[in-house]
Amino acid sequence: MSFRKEILDHGYLELVDTWGSEEQIIEAARMSTGKGFIGWGPIEKVCVHCHEGRVNVAMDAFHVSGVTDCPKCAGTGKVKGSGDEKLLRYLWENKHSTPFEMAGLTIEVQAPIFVFREWHRHRVPFSYNEMSARYVPLPDVNYVPTIERLMMNAGGSNKQAGVVKGAVELTTLAAEAFQKMLFELYATAEVAYRVALEKGVPKELARVHLPVGRYSRMRASANLRGWLAFISLRSAPNAQWEIRQYSDAVGELIGRLFPRTWSLFQESKK
Amino acid sequence: MSFRKEILDHGYLELVDTWGSEEQIIEAARMSTGKGFIGWGPIEKVCVHCHEGRVNVAMDAFHVSGVTDCPKCAGTGKVKGSGDEKLLRYLWENKHSTPFEMAGLTIEVQAPIFVFREWHRHRVPFSYNEMSARYVPLPDVNYVPTIERLMMNAGGSNKQAGVVKGAVELTTLAAEAFQKMLFELYATAEVAYRVALEKGVPKELARVHLPVGRYSRMRASANLRGWLAFISLRSAPNAQWEIRQYSDAVGELIGRLFPRTWSLFQESKK
Amino acid sequence: MSFRKEILDHGYLELVDTWGSEEQIIEAARMSTGKGFIGWGPIEKVCVHCHEGRVNVAMDAFHVSGVTDCPKCAGTGKVKGSGDEKLLRYLWENKHSTPFEMAGLTIEVQAPIFVFREWHRHRVPFSYNEMSARYVPLPDVNYVPTIERLMMNAGGSNKQAGVVKGAVELTTLAAEAFQKMLFELYATAEVAYRVALEKGVPKELARVHLPVGRYSRMRASANLRGWLAFISLRSAPNAQWEIRQYSDAVGELIGRLFPRTWSLFQESKK
Amino acid sequence: MSFRKEILDHGYLELVDTWGSEEQIIEAARMSTGKGFIGWGPIEKVCVHCHEGRVNVAMDAFHVSGVTDCPKCAGTGKVKGSGDEKLLRYLWENKHSTPFEMAGLTIEVQAPIFVFREWHRHRVPFSYNEMSARYVPLPDVNYVPTIERLMMNAGGSNKQAGVVKGAVELTTLAAEAFQKMLFELYATAEVAYRVALEKGVPKELARVHLPVGRYSRMRASANLRGWLAFISLRSAPNAQWEIRQYSDAVGELIGRLFPRTWSLFQESKK
Repeated sequence: MSFRKEILDHGYLELVDTWGSEEQIIEAARMSTGKGFIGWGPIEKVCVHCHEGRVNVAMDAFHVSGVTDCPKCAGTGKVKGSGDEKLLRYLWENKHSTPFEMAGLTIEVQAPIFVFREWHRHRVPFSYNEMSARYVPLPDVNYVPTIERLMMNAGGSNKQAGVVKGAVELTTLAAEAFQKMLFELYATAEVAYRVALEKGVPKELARVHLPVGRYSRMRASANLRGWLAFISLRSAPNAQWEIRQYSDAVGELIGRLFPRTWSLFQESKK
Repeated sequence: MSFRKEILDHGYLELVDTWGSEEQIIEAARMSTGKGFIGWGPIEKVCVHCHEGRVNVAMDAFHVSGVTDCPKCAGTGKVKGSGDEKLLRYLWENKHSTPFEMAGLTIEVQAPIFVFREWHRHRVPFSYNEMSARYVPLPDVNYVPTIERLMMNAGGSNKQAGVVKGAVELTTLAAEAFQKMLFELYATAEVAYRVALEKGVPKELARVHLPVGRYSRMRASANLRGWLAFISLRSAPNAQWEIRQYSDAVGELIGRLFPRTWSLFQESKK
Repeated sequence: MSFRKEILDHGYLELVDTWGSEEQIIEAARMSTGKGFIGWGPIEKVCVHCHEGRVNVAMDAFHVSGVTDCPKCAGTGKVKGSGDEKLLRYLWENKHSTPFEMAGLTIEVQAPIFVFREWHRHRVPFSYNEMSARYVPLPDVNYVPTIERLMMNAGGSNKQAGVVKGAVELTTLAAEAFQKMLFELYATAEVAYRVALEKGVPKELARVHLPVGRYSRMRASANLRGWLAFISLRSAPNAQWEIRQYSDAVGELIGRLFPRTWSLFQESKK
Repeated sequence: MSFRKEILDHGYLELVDTWGSEEQIIEAARMSTGKGFIGWGPIEKVCVHCHEGRVNVAMDAFHVSGVTDCPKCAGTGKVKGSGDEKLLRYLWENKHSTPFEMAGLTIEVQAPIFVFREWHRHRVPFSYNEMSARYVPLPDVNYVPTIERLMMNAGGSNKQAGVVKGAVELTTLAAEAFQKMLFELYATAEVAYRVALEKGVPKELARVHLPVGRYSRMRASANLRGWLAFISLRSAPNAQWEIRQYSDAVGELIGRLFPRTWSLFQESKK
């Protein structure tokens, strides 16, 4: 499977590699009882209410919840499935998290430095390899928020991330002025950077004035449990909107690679 | 690729999944300079001695060392390759370890409990899922060392793991007697286990007298850097011979999946 | 502070060292806003209902919740404190976990091997150093459950850990018989162990028949966040009763060293 | 013990807390054989050469190496100590690293963002809490390298960190010009920051143009093994000079708190 998504004005997120599968998650969990993966639905399911209604649905019609309406009880009863979706749900709901370490994914990301600063707080079980301004002049690619973004109720429900005390309310005009100022500051910084490099200032020092809004690039790898913990924090309403765009993209990717786990994760976030 | 190896009297080690590649290790390392994977040899190589001799070998003839004899100097000079083997070697020799976290493998293992006890000391970045005697009666499969193993200079160069003070020298006869005793102790333990279970002793208590030589089963997953650190300790001469059999099997597996890295690892252990 | 608690028939748990404090947890959290620790209650608190009632209690009368009944409203209103207990609660309830990594404790534990087997699944951020049967003959100290323990509804709410299918109900007589059998099996194992050692079987092999009920000893160290995650799993109703005794003892210790955090933890478990 | 060191133009490193001790490291290591800490020198030591010369020195005269000149052999022989320094050395030289996880330290650091970016790559077993520009306007404190630093053969032996291709050689005049430019760029950035904040741009966005040379502040905590791994990389000749100043300060601190371990570490770096 290939996956690439453009994010913000100059960023992207791309799948590099993935391993494991939901079948392997089940197999790992079944280690404890010495059994393996049995199978996802369809498996004949009997109604827990009338004990008569039966359903035999195909996988793609099967809700991960393992529960569908009973055809006999006319919707008042529920039919409980018995495929391995049930075990997956049990693992998830009872926080048996180690089987979810048996799968994972590696991605490549381009994002502003301030996004990476938040990202790198995720220490275990993450691995990172990032572009280094010590070794290569950073490309002149910088983040400028859109007017829409600037006018957004910043930080969502996170008041701390909002405006300073005594600030006036942001107008579209002031937002545009900020944008213009950013372009200028970025351009000046770039000129100063080039001059310094040409004059013989070593790369590792010529970059000290570069802004945290400049884009960098990295590879990041973690197991599924790690990625879900990342999304838990970084797709939350009080996360910064910028990192949320990346976190949501990882979520979309996980939704395609591990659809049942992703459903359970989303359900638990409601 | 599939891989399964029988180990000790009743154990095995099996590949479940693998991810990443040596190309991806290079790509991750090149993140720092914003470049990617270029290519393994053949790439024209010039002799570092006479600056005239050139070699253009195919990959499989190419030594991971990136060094071959010069055809011009008649063996006195050396030709240095410039494929990405060179970067891989540089990473390895300079302990730039993070790129080696971008690949990994998941295995299934059956081994005696005392082997797993050592194995589980490897905490980061390992993931484990093991059979549990709380949930399922452990199968009656137990480790009995061979006479050859018993007579081995136990613990290799590790004197601490040797015999107690005041012990006589082990004879073949005494070794055979020990084996016989083990069979009897294991059989008695199993009978007692079954009786306890039948009489209603809960599984989690009926097992307290089971020997550490009883086999258990698990899945283990880690990145390549983690596995190499494991092998470093567990294939060392002073590691217990039993876990060394498993560690060596992981090494064999890594040799097939990541041959250039494995060569560098082995070279550094000499 | 010194702390030692006898656990099971031959086990114990002892404090070796501790670091950090709840003040330092607050200071670490306040890093984000550039401020430090302000102070625990008493701090004058105003009623949130009538805006008149005031309370000025001493620390030990102060509920960690930061909430007390209003003296003016006669119990219908609540007075909210503004000491740093409030921030601690905020951190806890919003899962800002990293400040809780700024404190920790190291303990020494003697427990049966099967308890350590569960313990060692806690990988990050734990450190362990354990007695090794490769290096020293394990002392003849073994775990025998009491009749009371054997008759307990094993595994609490954890049915999987209960009896096998087809088992009869455990009687006191059968429990006593199991106890007796354990004593005998342990005694036989010890005799066989000593004979093997004397005959020259290396320590690392002479121990393969030793039971998982034999006691071992270790030092374990982790930060507060790690210990609380440990207790979360190991003091849960479905944890094995034996490890729960150790986990509860760690809880008692944390209750003395970090009383406010412990209150918040316990509250969240209800 | 208190420790504070000023670093660079506006940075510092301060001890917050420490735990464990070299005695506890020994005790943890001795867990494997069931013994504890015996004692540092003085312990009577016999010459390994003449078997006659004896030394009985006080601790502070005792070299961590456990080796002193023999008084009998007149300097040709060596007297080997038998205090627990010997075990500490054995642990260190044989990479038995886990006992060194039984001690640690928490520090507070003020450093430029680009230094923290390198610092945070140390994931396990580190804990961090840093000031956040989302929550509080970052103080206007920025790093300006001295002329001496700018003229230094940048990056030490690390050519990659040096100048770009085609650059002229850096002159004192050009270095002074770079400094001046930095002051201006920093001042402009600050003005733009304040204006944006006052106009109602949320804190989390008003900071995107702030330079990576701006100072931030954090608490960092890790065990001794972790700190030594940090120093290994960050006090190496090819580390960036700025982070080396911080790393060297951590080393100085460790030298005071864990002097024998620090001696062994330094010896192994030669």
